[in-house]
Amino acid sequence: MKNFEFYNPVRILFGKGSISQINKHLPSRVPVLLMYGGGSIKKNGVYDQVLQTLKNTEYYEYPGVQPNPVYEQLMPALDLIREKKIGFILAVGGGSVIDGAKFVAAAACYTGSDPWEILSKQVRVENALPIGAVLTLPATGSEMNGNSVITRASLKHKLSFGTSKVMPEFSVLDPEVTYSLPKNQIANGVIDAFIHVLEQYLTYPSNAEIQDRFAESILLVLKDTGSKVYADPEPNYDDRANFMWAATNALNTSISMGVISDWSTHTIGHELTALYGLDHAVSLAIVLPGVMHFLRVKRQEKLAQFGEHIWGITSHDPQVAIAETIKYTEQFFRCLGVKTKLSEYGIGPEAIDKVVKQLSSHGATVLGGAGDVTIDDVPAILGTRI
Amino acid sequence: MKNFEFYNPVRILFGKGSISQINKHLPSRVPVLLMYGGGSIKKNGVYDQVLQTLKNTEYYEYPGVQPNPVYEQLMPALDLIREKKIGFILAVGGGSVIDGAKFVAAAACYTGSDPWEILSKQVRVENALPIGAVLTLPATGSEMNGNSVITRASLKHKLSFGTSKVMPEFSVLDPEVTYSLPKNQIANGVIDAFIHVLEQYLTYPSNAEIQDRFAESILLVLKDTGSKVYADPEPNYDDRANFMWAATNALNTSISMGVISDWSTHTIGHELTALYGLDHAVSLAIVLPGVMHFLRVKRQEKLAQFGEHIWGITSHDPQVAIAETIKYTEQFFRCLGVKTKLSEYGIGPEAIDKVVKQLSSHGATVLGGAGDVTIDDVPAILGTRI
Repeated sequence: MKNFEFYNPVRILFGKGSISQINKHLPSRVPVLLMYGGGSIKKNGVYDQVLQTLKNTEYYEYPGVQPNPVYEQLMPALDLIREKKIGFILAVGGGSVIDGAKFVAAAACYTGSDPWEILSKQVRVENALPIGAVLTLPATGSEMNGNSVITRASLKHKLSFGTSKVMPEFSVLDPEVTYSLPKNQIANGVIDAFIHVLEQYLTYPSNAEIQDRFAESILLVLKDTGSKVYADPEPNYDDRANFMWAATNALNTSISMGVISDWSTHTIGHELTALYGLDHAVSLAIVLPGVMHFLRVKRQEKLAQFGEHIWGITSHDPQVAIAETIKYTEQFFRCLGVKTKLSEYGIGPEAIDKVVKQLSSHGATVLGGAGDVTIDDVPAILGTRI
Repeated sequence: MKNFEFYNPVRILFGKGSISQINKHLPSRVPVLLMYGGGSIKKNGVYDQVLQTLKNTEYYEYPGVQPNPVYEQLMPALDLIREKKIGFILAVGGGSVIDGAKFVAAAACYTGSDPWEILSKQVRVENALPIGAVLTLPATGSEMNGNSVITRASLKHKLSFGTSKVMPEFSVLDPEVTYSLPKNQIANGVIDAFIHVLEQYLTYPSNAEIQDRFAESILLVLKDTGSKVYADPEPNYDDRANFMWAATNALNTSISMGVISDWSTHTIGHELTALYGLDHAVSLAIVLPGVMHFLRVKRQEKLAQFGEHIWGITSHDPQVAIAETIKYTEQFFRCLGVKTKLSEYGIGPEAIDKVVKQLSSHGATVLGGAGDVTIDDVPAILGTRI
């Protein structure tokens, strides 16, 4: 096991009716910026519940945060923050809204010339406004970590930063708010969380027993309960609760402690999203089988462990087991209604060169923490995904 | 799944050499109280490593914290804290030293007449001195929670309190510091952590999939790696690391979220320790099989789940499976060199009345959170443990 530092001070308020507790956790006499997305929270009752708990709080609304949150849409929030002396940001939405709030929180305290440098130059975040979150879509784990991914639309760049300074002070997880989610968003959430676990687990053995078993626990819950949540004609509270808590645990950093994490699937997937507007989870579902196949020998041990413990696949020949494992994994995504080939989204082989160019323009050479995927490997990886 | 609030801001510094990082996490220009136990840290090099990281810090030593830390031994620390204007407590030791530091940290800021009221009257802790910990014995989980158990020797009372105010700001977990532990302390640590998990898991189904699977993950690691650590003639770093991280996760509150926890085994065990000086883990190993047997029908579902997932026991007749499960569990403790009957410690049937009287003197009626063990059940439970 590698040395590690674990720190996660996010307070989780979990369960039905938890939105009503928010006011107990807000700083007193501080104007709040209420950030949200396209307005679905106004249809499912979440907005009303939030306003109810804010009824004695001065707050200002900043709606319109987009999926894969966009720098150009977020920057005007800084004017409002200065003007109204905002001291707390409440993000109500999925990972995109929370990621957007994190960027705004850091940008509002940035002392350099251009907050984009937090992403483009990875300038260290020294301060940020405090954040709270109400999660409406279990998927990204952003509600319990310090990571944020932001797209600059004008450049088609999608970049990330991470710091404990933007970890939410609290996050509300009420499984009932997921009842109104469309099926494709549930599928995306299951796949996103599933691949988050794999980015941390499916690399090389580190003799980290707790982390491995916890990772497998989350994968099994997502496989079983995720499929049930997707298929169920009527929402079941406990299934939603298990799906929601699984997705949060998938990326609250506990399973990455002391092990070798990668994230090359995400690095490649981000470019597909930036170039073609594919949903984040869709881009991952396309790329992951290619990465698994490309690394079928180097990562044989963990791939075989994944196949055996999650899909029940064993074989005397590990490469036979791994081929089956990749097939089962891709099949799982397809059973959730997500297609896994570029051509199924009308994207041709020219995408490969475009992705490589994009990666190159960010100076990317090695694409993940495991060090076994470089920019030169992208044609081989995406070549199997046409 | 029940509603829950999760909050654990303890920073974990994990791995070999981590003690050297302590000075980065101490407040500057604040005198530190260095608390430790009987002096084993002076033999195994931990004391020297701690002094090295404190070399630019004003600190005062408070040694002699006893196993099952004793109120009468801890109280004089308050004079030293006032006199030297101590602003931070560094606890170096096992759970007893950390528990002792937590009580002192709360007592130092207590505004009532007698800090014992924090335990006897469960007076709410409003403030406490900040704490850091260097863990030398994986067992109690105290390094990553807000719980503390204190014994008042003169009254033979062993009582607990819990508050996030006494959660350590950081805890150092260096697996190498466990290399010098005697075998019986390793056995105690494995058993203590194992039963911590069971107090949270072995109650009633709550449809909390992540929590159940995480609990089973910890149990399996303690069963497999704990046994290896106990038996190995030479310490193995990864085994020690896995044992250490398992014991911390056993009681950092993550597996108790949203489920029904109990703690009646601990409630009864504490009295045996207070009366007869039995090691904490030994008292639990004696009591637990009695509690399991007593609840074999009421808790049938989780007992059977535990037997199947941890010991691989299945049967058409769940009561047959549960009897086997209890046998395997007790056998596991015995294989770690811990005897599980009172008579094996020279304690006779008169213990039953004494335990009941002690419990009664604390006003205990219902003994655990699950509500299915009362003081009237103690004779039936301990009756099988003679």
